[in-house]
Amino acid sequence: MRVTIWNEFRHERSDPQVAAIYPDGIHGALADAVRGPGVEVGTATLDEPEHGLPDEVLDATDVLVWWGHGAHAEVDDGLVERARARVLAGMGLVVLHSGHHAKLFKALMGTTCDLQWREADDVERLWVVAPGHPIARGIGPSIELEIEEMYGEPFDVPAPDELVFVSWFTGGEVFRSGCCYTRGRGRIFYFRPGHETHPTYHHPDVRRVIANAVAWAGCTSQTQS
Amino acid sequence: MRVTIWNEFRHERSDPQVAAIYPDGIHGALADAVRGPGVEVGTATLDEPEHGLPDEVLDATDVLVWWGHGAHAEVDDGLVERARARVLAGMGLVVLHSGHHAKLFKALMGTTCDLQWREADDVERLWVVAPGHPIARGIGPSIELEIEEMYGEPFDVPAPDELVFVSWFTGGEVFRSGCCYTRGRGRIFYFRPGHETHPTYHHPDVRRVIANAVAWAGCTSQTQS
Amino acid sequence: MRVTIWNEFRHERSDPQVAAIYPDGIHGALADAVRGPGVEVGTATLDEPEHGLPDEVLDATDVLVWWGHGAHAEVDDGLVERARARVLAGMGLVVLHSGHHAKLFKALMGTTCDLQWREADDVERLWVVAPGHPIARGIGPSIELEIEEMYGEPFDVPAPDELVFVSWFTGGEVFRSGCCYTRGRGRIFYFRPGHETHPTYHHPDVRRVIANAVAWAGCTSQTQS
Amino acid sequence: MRVTIWNEFRHERSDPQVAAIYPDGIHGALADAVRGPGVEVGTATLDEPEHGLPDEVLDATDVLVWWGHGAHAEVDDGLVERARARVLAGMGLVVLHSGHHAKLFKALMGTTCDLQWREADDVERLWVVAPGHPIARGIGPSIELEIEEMYGEPFDVPAPDELVFVSWFTGGEVFRSGCCYTRGRGRIFYFRPGHETHPTYHHPDVRRVIANAVAWAGCTSQTQS
Repeated sequence: MRVTIWNEFRHERSDPQVAAIYPDGIHGALADAVRGPGVEVGTATLDEPEHGLPDEVLDATDVLVWWGHGAHAEVDDGLVERARARVLAGMGLVVLHSGHHAKLFKALMGTTCDLQWREADDVERLWVVAPGHPIARGIGPSIELEIEEMYGEPFDVPAPDELVFVSWFTGGEVFRSGCCYTRGRGRIFYFRPGHETHPTYHHPDVRRVIANAVAWAGCTSQTQS
Repeated sequence: MRVTIWNEFRHERSDPQVAAIYPDGIHGALADAVRGPGVEVGTATLDEPEHGLPDEVLDATDVLVWWGHGAHAEVDDGLVERARARVLAGMGLVVLHSGHHAKLFKALMGTTCDLQWREADDVERLWVVAPGHPIARGIGPSIELEIEEMYGEPFDVPAPDELVFVSWFTGGEVFRSGCCYTRGRGRIFYFRPGHETHPTYHHPDVRRVIANAVAWAGCTSQTQS
Repeated sequence: MRVTIWNEFRHERSDPQVAAIYPDGIHGALADAVRGPGVEVGTATLDEPEHGLPDEVLDATDVLVWWGHGAHAEVDDGLVERARARVLAGMGLVVLHSGHHAKLFKALMGTTCDLQWREADDVERLWVVAPGHPIARGIGPSIELEIEEMYGEPFDVPAPDELVFVSWFTGGEVFRSGCCYTRGRGRIFYFRPGHETHPTYHHPDVRRVIANAVAWAGCTSQTQS
Repeated sequence: MRVTIWNEFRHERSDPQVAAIYPDGIHGALADAVRGPGVEVGTATLDEPEHGLPDEVLDATDVLVWWGHGAHAEVDDGLVERARARVLAGMGLVVLHSGHHAKLFKALMGTTCDLQWREADDVERLWVVAPGHPIARGIGPSIELEIEEMYGEPFDVPAPDELVFVSWFTGGEVFRSGCCYTRGRGRIFYFRPGHETHPTYHHPDVRRVIANAVAWAGCTSQTQS
């Protein structure tokens, strides 16, 4: 399976706090989480030519992982349409955190993908509500993150085809934080955690969920080969 | 629309604390919540002959509301099967709180309907995750209950056809607390709140949700008339 | 409830066969099907200024019914975005037949909405697979249309939140022909029948389904008033 | 993965026509279809002690395949409850054809599981409506069976979590013929074809679907090991 991690890669270069947490970029941490036997990982970032996703890369990608935040508007519309077509044809897509507002995710969902949010000192606890789901494999009843940005309901997405995680936050909010979709032949997983100022992608359970999600989302793509 | 409120009606007679909160029984409070123009309400309780639900009552019921807790095992299996057949033929069913373990609900779900729980001093905040749903009509972004029993995930039910509410509890848990199902021609709504030692069924938003749920669940039954 | 029927209204003016079937336009036949106590109906067509849907019309519409076929590309992108925002805010949407390729429907679904098709002499039989659903109210086990265009699977839409009808065609195909979605606060129903060269919208059961669908889709919008 | 094929095994012993088609029993044909690298297959039949499913067999089974028809009532209720508990704990279940009325399937669904049927000379064509689904892997747009018993809608089951196949029959009916469910930690697939008087389980595409379904349903069970 060939996985491409796409990262905006701006915060890490402009904010020393983020750089300290992710010295190899968020994409570097995610690549480490996903890499394994039978899983080849490449990375691509916004400021590379064609955002690092020319046709030859996109066409060879079984699962695309997407992290973006402040620069969604800079992503080329043509790339968005090409990536969407690839998903509908069977490429898996794992959308992380603030990627809920990525053009690609919004185009596939058809809704605003808006949500409530707050940067504070919330603890986030992600509860598994689908204990048998492959994406929850190896995870206990919940995952606890000592500090994370809060995302709250209502989350304006289509009702997920399968809901795997629901988050609790100290401040009193809940969030559907692990949502599965099938669109065309492609599988899509949205996973909430991962604010850039917290070391979330170094958390072993978060890494395991992302690796599981890549395996789940890649299943369809690989059936075609 | 003819609504029948079924209540175990044991706690109110044995526990003065519960009797003080519900002097007319939980069924009395629920009947007040549901009664309105075009909605006739009757009540039935466990210790009446045939549990208050002989054929002539069941057959004339458009929506059955069910509250039970300690005496699920005493409910007659024949009645359970008759009530289940009525639901599949189009009678609506609204199952409240500890009714998750009622024989009728378990027979319709096919799963254990187990959950985690704790009696403590939790605040419960129910978030609307389906803002356009008829059952959330007139409700703001969330409902806050100052003190309630905690129910936590995993909740072993089939994934709801529509998920309307998700609860947050002070102690760190979440729960899918408003779940819609269609089984046969019948509509079923499970709604979490309502521990007998708290005045939950006097809360105006909780009453509104239950009245909305009755209207939603009764829609199918009435189509046949 | 205020319903606006939108029709491309080209075939009726260029093709005498279609004009003979729909002398008042397809929108005229649909308006007759939907009009009733408590339901005000207006119409709008492609070649009117702003396609007949200026803000004051769209904002006053509880349910929009959409029939388009050959001129999807001529529909203004700004209108599509305004209409999509209205659906997400709670306006109902009923999309008919070749409207599966309307920009508005595709934007809300996020997929290609492609399907197989054939113009021949097929009989279409629509089976009710959700007998208790409000949209099937008053309909028997199936609806038979003596001659219709064939639409076949795979239909590239998200799995419907509720599937109400499945069509059978003489030539050997099936189709998910009555599909319910919720997007944002809005309810969407796609209904397959209605090729312009057949008198489908004069069929009493088809008219009843469309009237039922309007009532179902309008439920959300009206909750806000 | 350890698969147990359960077969009623009565028709093959009493009806020479069936015996001629399935000289090793329906379970023998199914075992051949499912056996493969990493897949151990055992069989069990109604008239063996404990119906061939004592605890030590059931507890060692990752996926149970079930074919029954005329003798559903003879299956021991205690076994049904043990098997249901195993499914909820993660054992996969593939239910074939007339198994729609098996006690085990009905207990898991909570509905009557009734349907329409006719034994005639129908052609059945099963259309793939979820082309990216693992259970449809390697299958073209449809599967054609020259002669099969007809099953028609309405099929009184809960709306499937995922719908993979829809059948067309010569006589004018449709049927949701490939239905996925998750119950507890267990995955359940219902697959329609397989009347005992037709050589359906020798058809390569039918065999492939059943093997795919076993792999899909076994995924959850294996996560626990």
